[in-house]
Amino acid sequence: MLSTSKKDTLTGWACTAKGEPLKEMELPLKTWDENCVDMEIICCGMCGTDIHTLEEKFGSCTNWPCVIGMYFNIEWHLTHVLNLHQGHEIVGKVTRVGKNVTNVCVGDRGGVGFQADSCGKCEECLKGNENMCTVRLVQTYNDNWYNGDKTYGGYANRWRGDYRFICKIPDSMTSEIAASFMCAGLTMYAPLKRAVSSKSVVGIMGIGGLGHFAILFAKAMGAKVVAMSQTASKRSVALELGADEFLVTSDLKAMGSYKKQWIDYFNLLKAKGHFINLMLGDWEFPPIDPALLCFHQVYIHGTLIGSPKEIEEMLAFADEHEIKPWITTYPMSKANEALEYFKARKPRFRLVLKN
Amino acid sequence: MLSTSKKDTLTGWACTAKGEPLKEMELPLKTWDENCVDMEIICCGMCGTDIHTLEEKFGSCTNWPCVIGMYFNIEWHLTHVLNLHQGHEIVGKVTRVGKNVTNVCVGDRGGVGFQADSCGKCEECLKGNENMCTVRLVQTYNDNWYNGDKTYGGYANRWRGDYRFICKIPDSMTSEIAASFMCAGLTMYAPLKRAVSSKSVVGIMGIGGLGHFAILFAKAMGAKVVAMSQTASKRSVALELGADEFLVTSDLKAMGSYKKQWIDYFNLLKAKGHFINLMLGDWEFPPIDPALLCFHQVYIHGTLIGSPKEIEEMLAFADEHEIKPWITTYPMSKANEALEYFKARKPRFRLVLKN
Repeated sequence: MLSTSKKDTLTGWACTAKGEPLKEMELPLKTWDENCVDMEIICCGMCGTDIHTLEEKFGSCTNWPCVIGMYFNIEWHLTHVLNLHQGHEIVGKVTRVGKNVTNVCVGDRGGVGFQADSCGKCEECLKGNENMCTVRLVQTYNDNWYNGDKTYGGYANRWRGDYRFICKIPDSMTSEIAASFMCAGLTMYAPLKRAVSSKSVVGIMGIGGLGHFAILFAKAMGAKVVAMSQTASKRSVALELGADEFLVTSDLKAMGSYKKQWIDYFNLLKAKGHFINLMLGDWEFPPIDPALLCFHQVYIHGTLIGSPKEIEEMLAFADEHEIKPWITTYPMSKANEALEYFKARKPRFRLVLKN
Repeated sequence: MLSTSKKDTLTGWACTAKGEPLKEMELPLKTWDENCVDMEIICCGMCGTDIHTLEEKFGSCTNWPCVIGMYFNIEWHLTHVLNLHQGHEIVGKVTRVGKNVTNVCVGDRGGVGFQADSCGKCEECLKGNENMCTVRLVQTYNDNWYNGDKTYGGYANRWRGDYRFICKIPDSMTSEIAASFMCAGLTMYAPLKRAVSSKSVVGIMGIGGLGHFAILFAKAMGAKVVAMSQTASKRSVALELGADEFLVTSDLKAMGSYKKQWIDYFNLLKAKGHFINLMLGDWEFPPIDPALLCFHQVYIHGTLIGSPKEIEEMLAFADEHEIKPWITTYPMSKANEALEYFKARKPRFRLVLKN
């Protein structure tokens, strides 16, 4: 447990320079306004780019001013993407709410994911696609609020942010499980919900922290699931997670160089099937033969987290279908040790830090 | 009017060598079976690749055994694709039906488009996606029926083929208009129907034989239509066809080299918008940055004609909404003259040969 900090500050595990371990530091909370919610952090999930952030591997996605300073790295295929930042799978206990807050009360448990704010006024926000905000998506850490304050993540004791991006956690769900849903779960739930029905056959390329969620969700949606991995060693966990079939994509190993042709993907799909990209990085999919689009009639698209409404839906869905992600926990005070465990790719499958 | 041929032959305007004009020739009809329908051809629409066929510009799409000997050429952008063959916008009067024929009677007018047969047994055929037949799509000419006979198109006096790919023409529709719907109309109707609602804003890139159908259909579906052309000279016809706005894509002129980046297309689209490709050819769309798929969340897909059911739907829709394509007619006997007119890009917008 981190020491209690004074009212308008947090105490967080922060890194001051590349290669340095995390250290406890006192940092300012967002300036209070009547949309704010304060939470004492119960736990926070760890994501891949937490590590990349620490390692100063930030790339630039400056085409999109909403994603300043993000870095994306690739480890697996297609459904496995480390598009996540340090400490944005936060679950906490609400300790104070502003006058405008309508969705959580003091004493409730609230959850925050990758996104902490949006303009709230653009067409996408008004349609409930806040994650597609055309003005600016505010990230839960390593970003700035609209008022200019810095955002800090969930490797800390406290968090303060806008109620619109905080959701109430169902009573029946443990905080650790809820935390893992906030970003990794949502990243899988939202695209599957858009594309999958009980008649679907879903191929999940890459069985890691995200892919394991994809298996759990797709099965709960009634689909047939084919888990795919470059390595046969994932077979047993894939089947244990509920996959109907397992495919070693040894012939797709060349994908590591990202020189694969679209025809190789398209041949995996039925007519009007969906190819949903979740991977990000400094590489490109190959050029597309226009005839492939016409003759195969597959849909190529991508996804990025989900909206606050989709978080709510997901939690209700996960609760109803008793979806149980696989979680390893560490005390928040052992954040540095947890990072090493994570970097060694040992978690099966999500790692959550607990205060 | 072509001379009457004996029962199991047709008299058609055929070409025997590159550069030669069309000449009247007697050719065999498909061997009769109880699924067959005979028609006296009333008229036949002309499509771009009719010309390319004559000019021996056949390319190879041998990745797809269903499309043997097809040639695709590019003239415009995106919605304008000459993926069509000589004489496959056929309307005729039914003169004989086999015992298994259930959808047309002697005396009815029937229409045939680009596709004349499919296996009828694969998953896609059984789902009603015959145009996605996984065994083989039989083209209305320059192909072989499943029994091995050659297919011949509609620059002729007679046509015989399988009833499953013949549709009844509504009484209220002229044969010339119906003919133009059979391939060009369908190629536009099917993808618009899948993607467009009254809330859509549809950009039509290329206002030609296909693009003009896209404007008519998208407007009838209640969408807002932005017609786009490389040249300002299409403004008046685009507006006359019903477009709400007209955009000169002079800055997209570089697309002629097909070096354009996806970001240029994606910037035209809203989140979750659709980019539907209808162009085919021996070029490629550029590589895709995976981040674009995630952050823009557009759907990239393509389309190829439509199913028999979609033809039926389209004709009913066109009838109800009184969709009037712009047609120039020529006597079938002046097929050679019509070809010259077509090659000079003079038709506004479809050309139909009449017996």
